[in-house]
Amino acid sequence: MKARVTVTLKNGVLDPQGKAIEGALGGLGFDSIAAVRQGKVFDVELAHTDAGAAKADLEQMCEKLLANTVIENFAIEIV
Amino acid sequence: MKARVTVTLKNGVLDPQGKAIEGALGGLGFDSIAAVRQGKVFDVELAHTDAGAAKADLEQMCEKLLANTVIENFAIEIV
Repeated sequence: MKARVTVTLKNGVLDPQGKAIEGALGGLGFDSIAAVRQGKVFDVELAHTDAGAAKADLEQMCEKLLANTVIENFAIEIV
Repeated sequence: MKARVTVTLKNGVLDPQGKAIEGALGGLGFDSIAAVRQGKVFDVELAHTDAGAAKADLEQMCEKLLANTVIENFAIEIV
């Protein structure tokens, strides 16, 4: 079973990397950019056959390792 | 208009970061993990009102800055 975990910064958390990308895109002439925020994506392959169990395990993984839940949100999607 | 750009490594390209995460998850007792690959996600806010024009601009941004198209794939999603 395959899943995609997306980890993004919570609203209000400063994102200097996103700001730098925003500036670089502006410098390249893309003047329609209002904001950029960067996050991470993890494509995980699991041995599970049950989607519910996979999702529960992935939530544990996010809380323990993949995301810093103080400043980051995570979303799990079974694909 | 908001869009999400997902940049992932092409198949066959080595992903040491993903391997490290895979190992760390195994060490935490998650033994159902078969593979992990890490990518990047960009949440972009654009001044465009036309989805087609926004998508065309985002493709240009990916080719010029956001993705290294030699080793990475990108996917654009208007949200």
